[in-house]
Amino acid sequence: MLLKEISMTTVAFIGLGIMGGPMAGHLVNAGFDVVGYNRSQPKIDELVAAGGKGASSIADAVREADVVAVMVPDSPDVREVLAGEGGVFDNAKPGTLIIDFSSIRPDVTTELAAQAIQRGFRLLDAPVSGGEAGAKNAALSIMVGGDKSDFDAAADVFNAVGKTVVLVGPNGAGQTVKAANQLIVAGNIQLLAEAVAFVEAYGVDTEAALKVLGGGLAGSKVLDQKGANMLGRSFPPGFRIELHHKDLGIVTAAAREAGVVIPLGAVVAQLMASAVANGDGGLDHSALLRGVLRLSGQNPDSPSDSAS
Amino acid sequence: MLLKEISMTTVAFIGLGIMGGPMAGHLVNAGFDVVGYNRSQPKIDELVAAGGKGASSIADAVREADVVAVMVPDSPDVREVLAGEGGVFDNAKPGTLIIDFSSIRPDVTTELAAQAIQRGFRLLDAPVSGGEAGAKNAALSIMVGGDKSDFDAAADVFNAVGKTVVLVGPNGAGQTVKAANQLIVAGNIQLLAEAVAFVEAYGVDTEAALKVLGGGLAGSKVLDQKGANMLGRSFPPGFRIELHHKDLGIVTAAAREAGVVIPLGAVVAQLMASAVANGDGGLDHSALLRGVLRLSGQNPDSPSDSAS
Repeated sequence: MLLKEISMTTVAFIGLGIMGGPMAGHLVNAGFDVVGYNRSQPKIDELVAAGGKGASSIADAVREADVVAVMVPDSPDVREVLAGEGGVFDNAKPGTLIIDFSSIRPDVTTELAAQAIQRGFRLLDAPVSGGEAGAKNAALSIMVGGDKSDFDAAADVFNAVGKTVVLVGPNGAGQTVKAANQLIVAGNIQLLAEAVAFVEAYGVDTEAALKVLGGGLAGSKVLDQKGANMLGRSFPPGFRIELHHKDLGIVTAAAREAGVVIPLGAVVAQLMASAVANGDGGLDHSALLRGVLRLSGQNPDSPSDSAS
Repeated sequence: MLLKEISMTTVAFIGLGIMGGPMAGHLVNAGFDVVGYNRSQPKIDELVAAGGKGASSIADAVREADVVAVMVPDSPDVREVLAGEGGVFDNAKPGTLIIDFSSIRPDVTTELAAQAIQRGFRLLDAPVSGGEAGAKNAALSIMVGGDKSDFDAAADVFNAVGKTVVLVGPNGAGQTVKAANQLIVAGNIQLLAEAVAFVEAYGVDTEAALKVLGGGLAGSKVLDQKGANMLGRSFPPGFRIELHHKDLGIVTAAAREAGVVIPLGAVVAQLMASAVANGDGGLDHSALLRGVLRLSGQNPDSPSDSAS
C-alpha cells in the first residue's frame, strides 16, 4: 500500500554526481516524478534531458517531495544538506521519507536520524556498494539502516537502483556495514597487490597466475575486477583512493570507538594514506599496487615485466 | 600421443591423506592403474577397496610407474620421498614424470627439480587449492610449474582431479603461485574476521550484513565459504591453522628473498602464529576470528550476540 503510494509520487534527488546522476535516471525510468538538485547546473540539465525536473535550490527540490534521496560525498555534506540553513529539515513536508545513499560516519547518521525523527521526518541510511558500474546498471548492493516499515515503504525506490538490498539494523547500521565493506575491499586490494608484486618478482606468468588464483579459495570480486589494472599498471578511477582514504578514516575511528581491534584494517589505512601522500589520491584504489612497488624499491611507473 | 600413453599406464601415488586419498581414487576412476603408498596401512586399504593397488614401500610403488604423484605435508617430506634413501629417485624408471601436488617451499622445488632432471626424470610442481571438498569433487585449482611438454603429457592426470589447471611458469612457479594463494586467503579471512567483529559490536544483523557484503565488491570465496563458521563460532577443519601457519612461513621467507615487501602478509603471518600460540592450530583457518575477539578483550568461546 505504502509502496504504491510512493511509487506514484515525487522523489527529490540531491546530488547528481557519478553515482547520484545514474540513480536519479533509473528512478525516472521506474516512473517516479524526480526533481533533481546539484550544485553545478550541467548535471541538472542531464536529468531534465532524461525526463526529470530541475530545481534551483534544495528548498525548491524537496518542498513537494514524498521521498528525498541524498547522494553526496561526506559527513559534512550530508549534515549541510539535511540540517543546514535552507536544507531538507527546514523545507520538506512532515512525514517525508529521507533516504541517504551517501557513505558517512555512522555516528553522524544516528545523530541526523534522531533530529529527523524529532522534526517529524523518517530517515533511512542506505549506503551503496558496486561503484559507477553498479549505479549505471542499477545493480548496486544497498545496506540499509532504519525501521522495517520505512524500508518496506522504500522498496520501489531501492529496487529501481539496486540488486542486493538488505535491511541490516537500526539507523547507523547501514553505514556500519558500509564501513566494513570498505575495510574488506581495501584489504583485499592490498593483498592482491602484494601477491602480484610477489609472483612478478619470481618471473611467473602473472596473467595465468591470476586465472588459477581466481578459481580457488583466493577468488574474489576484487581479483576479478582489479587484477587487469594491476597487470597493466593502469589505474583510471573507478573508485578514487582519496575517497577510500576517507572511508578508512571512518572505519578505523568507529572500530576504536567500539573497542574492536582491526590490525589489517589499521595497516591498510596507513598504506592508503601513503598512497594519498604520494600523489595517487586521484587514481583508482587498485593503485595500492604502486605503494607495494615503492616499498619494494621498484619504480611504480615502469611497466610490469610480464606485460612487456 | 604422450597423453594416451600415460592414461593407459601406471601412476604411483605417494601420500593418501585427506587430499591424496580422494585424488588417487579419481585417478582409478579415470582408468589409470594406480599403485598407492602411505605410511599408515588403512589408507592403502581404502585405495585397494576403491580399485587401486597397494605397495609396501615407496620403492615398490614407483618401480613400474610411468607417473609418480606425491601429496605430502611439507618440504622435508617431499625431499625424503624423492631424494631420501629408498625414495623415488633411487627406484623409479628413467624418464618417469614426477608430479608433486604438495605445497612446499619454491626453492626446495627448484632444487629437487634440478636433481630430478640430472637423474633422468621429469618433474612438475603442481600444488592445489580448493581443500578437502575440491579434492573429493575433483574440482581443485592446480597451479603448475615446469615444462610445457610435461604439462601437456600430464593433462589426463590433472583433468581427473582438477577443474582449473594452469601452467604458470618454470619449476617453482607453481609453488610461488600457491604461496601467493595462501597469502591472499589468509588475509581475506582475517579481514572478514575484523569486519564481523566490527559489525557485531554495533548490534548489526550480521547474517544480513554478510549477505549484502557478498553482493558488492567485498564479495569473495572466503566470505561465501567461511562467513557461516564465524557467525556460528564453529571452526571444524577444513584447512587447519597449523598448516596455513607453515604456508605463511613459506610466503614471507620467499618475499623477503625476492625483496618484495608485503605489509599485510607480514601482519597476518603474525596473527596466524598467534592463533597457533593460543592453541587454535587444529581449528579451521576461519578461527582467525578468535584472535580478533581476543585482541578486542572478548571471550572467543562465547557465542555471538547475533547468533543467540
